[in-house]
Amino acid sequence: MKNLGYYNGKFGELEEMQIPMCDRVCFFGDGVYDATYSRNYKIFTLDEHIDRFYNSADLLSIDIPMCKRELKSLLNEMVKKVDSGENFVYWQVTRGTGIRNHVFPEAGCKANLWITVTPKNIVDTYKKVKLMTMDDTRFLHCNIKTLNLLPAVMASEKAKQEGCDEVVFHRNGRVTECAHSNVHIIKNGVFITAPTDNLILPGIARKHLIKACSKLGIPVEEREYNLDELFAADEILISSAGSLGLAASELDKKAVGGKAPDLLKKIQDEVQREFIEETALH
Amino acid sequence: MKNLGYYNGKFGELEEMQIPMCDRVCFFGDGVYDATYSRNYKIFTLDEHIDRFYNSADLLSIDIPMCKRELKSLLNEMVKKVDSGENFVYWQVTRGTGIRNHVFPEAGCKANLWITVTPKNIVDTYKKVKLMTMDDTRFLHCNIKTLNLLPAVMASEKAKQEGCDEVVFHRNGRVTECAHSNVHIIKNGVFITAPTDNLILPGIARKHLIKACSKLGIPVEEREYNLDELFAADEILISSAGSLGLAASELDKKAVGGKAPDLLKKIQDEVQREFIEETALH
Repeated sequence: MKNLGYYNGKFGELEEMQIPMCDRVCFFGDGVYDATYSRNYKIFTLDEHIDRFYNSADLLSIDIPMCKRELKSLLNEMVKKVDSGENFVYWQVTRGTGIRNHVFPEAGCKANLWITVTPKNIVDTYKKVKLMTMDDTRFLHCNIKTLNLLPAVMASEKAKQEGCDEVVFHRNGRVTECAHSNVHIIKNGVFITAPTDNLILPGIARKHLIKACSKLGIPVEEREYNLDELFAADEILISSAGSLGLAASELDKKAVGGKAPDLLKKIQDEVQREFIEETALH
Repeated sequence: MKNLGYYNGKFGELEEMQIPMCDRVCFFGDGVYDATYSRNYKIFTLDEHIDRFYNSADLLSIDIPMCKRELKSLLNEMVKKVDSGENFVYWQVTRGTGIRNHVFPEAGCKANLWITVTPKNIVDTYKKVKLMTMDDTRFLHCNIKTLNLLPAVMASEKAKQEGCDEVVFHRNGRVTECAHSNVHIIKNGVFITAPTDNLILPGIARKHLIKACSKLGIPVEEREYNLDELFAADEILISSAGSLGLAASELDKKAVGGKAPDLLKKIQDEVQREFIEETALH
């Protein structure tokens, strides 16, 4: 199939799939999601994404109607049914279905499980990206991967209109993360990234960048940093499930980074190697 | 019919209605809504709610696929088809349908219009409510009536668990609004309500309370106020489309209000009179 959707046991092409109008996602965005990529029909870092998914659901008291092992097995099966081996593998759970009411549905209302598998490659790790800064006006629950994503939608569209690839959010100058990536800097040989509090998502690509640095003997600081440090960084990197560690060449139309290309390449080579090896045919 | 749903020209009972899985509301909560009540098949303050709806959509660059007059006519028709004359009349617009992608769909993608009409009465205006305070952790776009409502869902459920009717949000002590109502105080004969900035929704019931005060010669102050003033208020009122101006008897389990019952009743009588007259049979 060219792509594949799943909703509570029903499968179909995404363009044909229908869901109940009274799924609470329709009125409240009442759910959480997670996503990663496959290559050669192998889903990269699946366990880590599934763990985070269950954690997000738990933080909002949503009971996922399937255990981790079952979900993993279902995702692996679905990826095999899509023509392309390179896919964006996305899944979400919504709290339930019922006539609109803010409070949770009465006991017995079951959560809904959704999956979409669509052909898509990760972005070239060595591609340079253009960034722009923006006030972070999002809610204070950015550690949870919720379906309340309007600020990310508006920021992403603004970036596109400005010819940029991503937006770097900041709160009064303190850099948090991007619209759909984490952001990190390299300065004087140190890899610096914001701590995982309620203002940023605990990115799995972020964790793998930190792991790469540890392996390479590059010191890592998990600490707050600000816009001045961002502009003055030797390198700026963004990461997400689909971009393992891309360096920025522009920020707010000004040239940035490019001052530690060897160190940057070492880190990129390591995360790229891990992705390729983990998704190799044999 | 017992209730009635609408999605892009299709009508049906809400429990049977289906919508495309790739409506952007499902992944991003990418839409806005508005709602009010009908009595005797007459929709209360419909023009004002429709005006606010178009304003919310405009603030997020969503093109509603219908003009105000057409939407008004459709809502009026739908209310007549439901058995009960007393309904919750709800409508929303979502940005469009397409494979998940943060940026807006390419030109040509049409927004989706949704309507639900469900039997429901407004709350008894003279009923006393119990409130609880909570940190306002929402985003900074509360002036737009979006479908990103997870914090309101979580707060409403918490209130229910605590035996309360509503949550009063505050930012570092500054009172903003409730999970799905505005909140106001009466002190020394003055009606005080937070200004309509990006932290609160410009409530239509709020506007009618202000209008009632003006008519009754009660001074109104639109200004920031804090938790201390809330606890010390002569009366605390909450308002929404479904609660025209209800007074609180409890806040965080402490007795509050009850110190200006005559003034309170004058205001409540006026908003109640307006609702009854505007929705009268003749």
